[in-house]
Amino acid sequence: MTTIKKFEKPIGMRDTFPVTFEKTEAIRNSGRTFLRGRGFEFVNTPSLEYYDTVGKASAIYDASLFKLVDSQGNTLVLRPDMTTPITRLATSKLLKEKIPLRLAYFANVFRAQQLEGGRPAEFEQMGIEVIGDKTVYADAEVIITAIQLVQDYGIQSFKVTIGHAGILNCILNDYTENETQANKLRSLLIERNYVGFEEAVHSFDLPKTKSDALLQFINEAANIESIEQIEKYVSKNESLLYMRQLAEIINLANLSKYVSFDFTLSSHMNYYTGMLFEIFAEGSGFPLGNGGRYDGLLHHFGSDVGATGFGIRVDRLLEIIPNQKTEEKTVAIIFEDEEFIKALDLSITLRTEGNHVTLQSRNGLVNEEAFIKVFDEVLYVTQEDK
Amino acid sequence: MTTIKKFEKPIGMRDTFPVTFEKTEAIRNSGRTFLRGRGFEFVNTPSLEYYDTVGKASAIYDASLFKLVDSQGNTLVLRPDMTTPITRLATSKLLKEKIPLRLAYFANVFRAQQLEGGRPAEFEQMGIEVIGDKTVYADAEVIITAIQLVQDYGIQSFKVTIGHAGILNCILNDYTENETQANKLRSLLIERNYVGFEEAVHSFDLPKTKSDALLQFINEAANIESIEQIEKYVSKNESLLYMRQLAEIINLANLSKYVSFDFTLSSHMNYYTGMLFEIFAEGSGFPLGNGGRYDGLLHHFGSDVGATGFGIRVDRLLEIIPNQKTEEKTVAIIFEDEEFIKALDLSITLRTEGNHVTLQSRNGLVNEEAFIKVFDEVLYVTQEDK
Repeated sequence: MTTIKKFEKPIGMRDTFPVTFEKTEAIRNSGRTFLRGRGFEFVNTPSLEYYDTVGKASAIYDASLFKLVDSQGNTLVLRPDMTTPITRLATSKLLKEKIPLRLAYFANVFRAQQLEGGRPAEFEQMGIEVIGDKTVYADAEVIITAIQLVQDYGIQSFKVTIGHAGILNCILNDYTENETQANKLRSLLIERNYVGFEEAVHSFDLPKTKSDALLQFINEAANIESIEQIEKYVSKNESLLYMRQLAEIINLANLSKYVSFDFTLSSHMNYYTGMLFEIFAEGSGFPLGNGGRYDGLLHHFGSDVGATGFGIRVDRLLEIIPNQKTEEKTVAIIFEDEEFIKALDLSITLRTEGNHVTLQSRNGLVNEEAFIKVFDEVLYVTQEDK
Repeated sequence: MTTIKKFEKPIGMRDTFPVTFEKTEAIRNSGRTFLRGRGFEFVNTPSLEYYDTVGKASAIYDASLFKLVDSQGNTLVLRPDMTTPITRLATSKLLKEKIPLRLAYFANVFRAQQLEGGRPAEFEQMGIEVIGDKTVYADAEVIITAIQLVQDYGIQSFKVTIGHAGILNCILNDYTENETQANKLRSLLIERNYVGFEEAVHSFDLPKTKSDALLQFINEAANIESIEQIEKYVSKNESLLYMRQLAEIINLANLSKYVSFDFTLSSHMNYYTGMLFEIFAEGSGFPLGNGGRYDGLLHHFGSDVGATGFGIRVDRLLEIIPNQKTEEKTVAIIFEDEEFIKALDLSITLRTEGNHVTLQSRNGLVNEEAFIKVFDEVLYVTQEDK
C-alpha cells in the first residue's frame, strides 16, 4: 500500500472545474432537448447494483469492475455501463404493456483502472435505448438519431461505422476449423489487432482456400461502401438482407455520407447480437460512442422483445466541442460593513438586469487585488460615497 | 447471504422514472440559474475518494460509509457528503490566490443503510460553500441565500433554525463536572432526545444550580426569538456578539420572519465550529437541508481561511414542490414500411413546430392499442392514404 497524501484522488478520478461544468451542462441541456423532441424519455438508475444482477450481465471485464460488499454480505458493483441497468429497469417495470420504450440517460459509469494512465475511472455517458421493437426500423432510428445528435452538437466531420456480430460470427466459423480458432480471431478483432489476425491465420494451418479468404476478408471488410461487397464471404441469409434494408433506410434519410460498413467490427460487449456500430469524430483517437442491437441481454432478463441503442462519451464530446464564452456579465460589489443594506439593494437591481452579482464584505478580503481581477466589473459601496 | 433475484436493487437504491427525472432536472436548472446569479460557480468531484483523505474527515458515521479496496490496496469510499471533497479541491487547487471562493454543486452522495427502511442510500444534494471569508457576512450570505433559494422554489412555509456549536459547548462544559458528561449530553442533543437529556442531567448528581440551569436551558433554548435570551447562560463572549450581528444582518435583509434560534442545535457533522443551522419546510418531517461554518475542516486540510455553506436534499425538495405538466405535445407517427420517408418528413415538420414526435414502424408494434394511449396525438402514414 502506498502512502496517500492529503489532496490525492483515487486512480482515474477527476475533479470538474467551473468552465468544464458549464460546458457539460450545456451538452446535457441541448442533448436532452434534442432527444425529448424525438420521443425519448429520460430515466436514471442507482450507481450501485448487485454484482449477480447487473455486474455479471454487463459484459465489462471483471477486473474493470469496482466491487464492494454490503452489510448483508452481497457483492455490489458501481455500474460499469447503463445499458444493463436500463434493461433491468425496463424488463422489471416498464415492459408490462408490451409497447416499445424509448429511454434516454445522462449518467456516470465506472471502470476501475489498474494504473494512472490518463484513462478516467468515472465518466459520463449519454445514450438511448429502444426496447421492444425488433424491426430494422428500430436499428435505423438508433443510427439516425446518433448521426443527427452529433450534427446537433455542431460536429460536421464524423463517421458511423456499422458491422454485424452475426455475420462476423458466420465468417469466422465458416473459415476456421474449430471454435478455439474462431474465438482467437474474434478477440484479436476486438483489440483491432489486424497484424495479429493475419499471423494467427497463418499459424492455424488451414486449407489454402480458407486462409486466403480470411486474409482477403481482413483487408477488404473493414471499409466497404455497399453490403454487396460482403456477400462473397457468406451464403445469402437474413442478416445480409437486414443490413441491406438498414443501408437503404439510412439512404432514404439522406445520411449515407456519414456511414461506412466494417464487417470486422467486434465488441467486448458480448451482448451485441446483431448490427453494431461505432462513431468516430475527427480530432479524437477514440470512438465518440458506440451502439448496437442487444436482444441477447433482454433474453438474459427473461424478455424476448429485443432492444437496440447507443452510448456517447460526454468526456470525449467535451474535447471536440469548442468552448463558449458565457454571456452574463460578472459583477462584484465590495461593501463596507456599515453599507451592507445599500450593497444588498444594489445587488438585487443588478441581478434583475441579468448580471451575475457577487456581494463581498471588504473586511473578508485578504487579497483584494487578486479578487477584483476575476470580475468583469467591480463596484464599491463605501461610506465615502455619501 | 440472501439470494438475489434478477430484478432487485441493493438496499436503499432507487430507479428514477421519467416524471421524477424531469422534475429533478427543473429543480437543477432553476437552482443553477439562481446560484450563478449570485456569483456561485458550479464544480463537481469524483464519486470515489480515498478513505484516508475524505472518508475520515467527512464526519459521517463509519458504518454509513460504502468502502471498497482498489487494485493498490487502498481503501476508497463513495463520497458521503460534498463539503469534504470540495474542501479538498479548494485547498489543493483553488485557494492559491487567497481570495474568497463561492462554489456550488448538485451531486449524489452515498450513505450505506443496514436495513431496507425507506431511507435512500444514494441521494442528490445541492449546496454552496463560501470558502476564504471569516466575517459574519459570509455566514449571513449563506443563510440569506438558503432562504431566498427555498423561496425561489415557490416554498413559502419554512423556517431556518440557527444555533452555535461554540456557545453550546461553553454551556455544556460550564454546567457539567467533566467532559464525559458534556459529551453524553451533546450526543443526546444530536439525536434530539430531550427526555434523555433531562434523565441524564438528573443522573449526573450535579450541584442544584447547575442541574437547574441545564433543565431550564433545554426547555428554553430550542426556540428563542432574540439572542439576548441566551445571554443568561453564558458569560459575554465573541460568539454571542457574532450571533447578534448575524441576527441584525438577517433583519436588515428583511428575512427575520423565516429565522428562529435554537441553541440546543448540535450536529453529528463535528466539523461545524461556529454557527450552524437547519432548514425545515412544512410538509416534511425531516430537515430540507442544513449548513454552518466549518473552519475546523479547512484546518484539517492545512488552511486557516475559514469556510461556511449549506446543503439541501434534492429528494426532499421533490416531495414538497408540486408536479408540473410538461407543455410539449407528444405525437406518435405510426408508419407502414413503404411509407418511411413520408413519415420521416412529417416528423421533421412536427418537431420544428415544437412537438415531441415518436416515429414508430407499425410492424414493430405488438400491442398497438396500448401504445397509442401514451400520446396526446397519433398519426398514421399508410399506403391507403394515397
